[in-house]
Amino acid sequence: MEKKYFIEMDKKDPLKEFRNHFFLPKNTIYFDGNSLGMAPKITKKRMEHVIGKEWGQGLIRSWADEEWGISGQRIGNKISKLIGANDGEVIAADSTSINIYKALTAALQCNQNRNIILSTNDNFPTDLYMMQGLQSFSPNKVKNKIVNKDEIDKYLDERVAALLLTEVDYKTGEILSMSEITKKAHDKGILVIWDLSHSVGSIPVDLNKCAADFAVGCGYKFLNGGPGAPAFLFVAKKHQEKIRPTLSGWMGHKNPFDFSIEYKPADGIDRFLCGTPPLLGLIALECGVDLILKANVTRLRKKAVKLSSLFIELMESMCSEFDFKLASPRDENRRAGHVSFMHHSGFAVSRAIASKGIVGDFRAPNIVRFGIAP
Amino acid sequence: MEKKYFIEMDKKDPLKEFRNHFFLPKNTIYFDGNSLGMAPKITKKRMEHVIGKEWGQGLIRSWADEEWGISGQRIGNKISKLIGANDGEVIAADSTSINIYKALTAALQCNQNRNIILSTNDNFPTDLYMMQGLQSFSPNKVKNKIVNKDEIDKYLDERVAALLLTEVDYKTGEILSMSEITKKAHDKGILVIWDLSHSVGSIPVDLNKCAADFAVGCGYKFLNGGPGAPAFLFVAKKHQEKIRPTLSGWMGHKNPFDFSIEYKPADGIDRFLCGTPPLLGLIALECGVDLILKANVTRLRKKAVKLSSLFIELMESMCSEFDFKLASPRDENRRAGHVSFMHHSGFAVSRAIASKGIVGDFRAPNIVRFGIAP
Repeated sequence: MEKKYFIEMDKKDPLKEFRNHFFLPKNTIYFDGNSLGMAPKITKKRMEHVIGKEWGQGLIRSWADEEWGISGQRIGNKISKLIGANDGEVIAADSTSINIYKALTAALQCNQNRNIILSTNDNFPTDLYMMQGLQSFSPNKVKNKIVNKDEIDKYLDERVAALLLTEVDYKTGEILSMSEITKKAHDKGILVIWDLSHSVGSIPVDLNKCAADFAVGCGYKFLNGGPGAPAFLFVAKKHQEKIRPTLSGWMGHKNPFDFSIEYKPADGIDRFLCGTPPLLGLIALECGVDLILKANVTRLRKKAVKLSSLFIELMESMCSEFDFKLASPRDENRRAGHVSFMHHSGFAVSRAIASKGIVGDFRAPNIVRFGIAP
Repeated sequence: MEKKYFIEMDKKDPLKEFRNHFFLPKNTIYFDGNSLGMAPKITKKRMEHVIGKEWGQGLIRSWADEEWGISGQRIGNKISKLIGANDGEVIAADSTSINIYKALTAALQCNQNRNIILSTNDNFPTDLYMMQGLQSFSPNKVKNKIVNKDEIDKYLDERVAALLLTEVDYKTGEILSMSEITKKAHDKGILVIWDLSHSVGSIPVDLNKCAADFAVGCGYKFLNGGPGAPAFLFVAKKHQEKIRPTLSGWMGHKNPFDFSIEYKPADGIDRFLCGTPPLLGLIALECGVDLILKANVTRLRKKAVKLSSLFIELMESMCSEFDFKLASPRDENRRAGHVSFMHHSGFAVSRAIASKGIVGDFRAPNIVRFGIAP
């Protein structure tokens, strides 16, 4: 393949204008979108306005005048368009880990006569750690079962309250079949919590088509919300009113400014708020989400598939002598926004290419991971 | 009192240069520091740098290169200087509500044979709601008791695991005696969790002098950390290693980047981190904390006492015909950073003065609250 071919492809790229919307790091080829997305230029501008004008001049009044108070809901509704949810089913708040805890405790309430939470040993660690924290505090209410991914079916039975899975494997980029697994779980009365941290903004997701129950996801990867951006929580409409949130902070109260002594859950998704919304982080997240909505996930996905297939082809033809082994699925329909290769000296490789300005990342024990999604 | 007197006072004010460090809202007299502190000019500047340079150019590398990864600890150590804690006892993270949950579950672990959590009915609502959420999920492990403030002593017995109190009453500004109450509780083997949201940055606090166990506090009031700024958590050194955090997210793991399946708590205060640190919010908080450290809480307190006594004097002499009744303690040693008046039409009063550019706030049923701390 010649340089001409790539230049031609770039010219035809319907997404090419989006390059101008981001700060482009100098002398860097950035393959780390799956750990921290790039910085939109508009984020800097909007933050200047929020700090200098909305906070600086409007102060406390901006909670109402600038709609700070409903930003978690507004951004949640925007994210819902990326994941096949309806208005009022998604809220942007807290971290992914905290939202996992909210979903776990909520699922146990919806499925009161069961106490097992099932997950897989290749799930992202924080998902497992949050399960373990909950079990350790409430051992008589919660029993965790962590199994191999290919054994899940065997464990789907009437004792399981909830199944917690990540749609896209953080190491290999493999996509699980959300619709198939959710259906199998529902057949046994099990609720499913989907972690979309490695899906949202990179592959189309359709939660309601699968009748999904709960989902969480992170804002700092493909959504470009900035380092440690707020995360989001999806709770299907059908479950919302049954749940009395365990993390019941004042912003999830029906009338937070009545300052009453008894907690009374707010209507709908609002009850899953907890503390005061982290406004600066939320505004940055909104900037990133707006850009993804404008770029359109279907178009992004199309380009990501093309780029990642090309990347695999080039790696295998040009680096064949160096003993890299593809860790991601070869089938492009089963591979999400990043491509991983195994290498016995994976860590050294990732450090070496980083020193040349090529930023990927390393996942123990031997995975070099490249974020290819545009 | 004549205008000349006030001009003279301003001239002598050792804190007067700090006025220049903040955005000053136009045509506004701002008495709402206890709900949202003002915006430091440096925050806007620093955020521009963090977004454009550290994130925009450094991207994922800035977690190490710019020390993003330890910002919660660094800012925690700065806050510790304001509340009489040592390095490694305070972490900036999450919201006040979430940190209350961390402290409650931790205290129950430290006091395993007890199950009562005691608090007062004039505590800030989110404190009570978080207790209620915990009890509702784990009713066999947790029983809440909410009593009148003047009855606390009666309920301090061997069944109580933890006492959760706010040092400064959010309505009246009354200061509780932290040392006296902590001692009484300890005499019965009860651990104490202090909510410092209305103290930190406005009155000197000395947690370790009182041998306090846990504390939480908010970043957006007197610390000027911005709307929804991250909060903080204090865990006394003596307790840290005993606790297996219930909200055990990956950032509280001993080796978060080993991605191991089993949660293993990090050493010391780090284990009380949960999800990825919300960097933009943390940076804004740090700017506010730096200014408070520079201004010095003892100096701030001295000025606040002077201003609030003067404010009461002027309100009572100039507005005596309007039926305002002082809700805050008259004794300046028992009154923290805000002054409250009761008025039968309190809500209407607060709206009316707001329309003239005088921003205080209203707390049901009849309290008009003025943040006087500088």
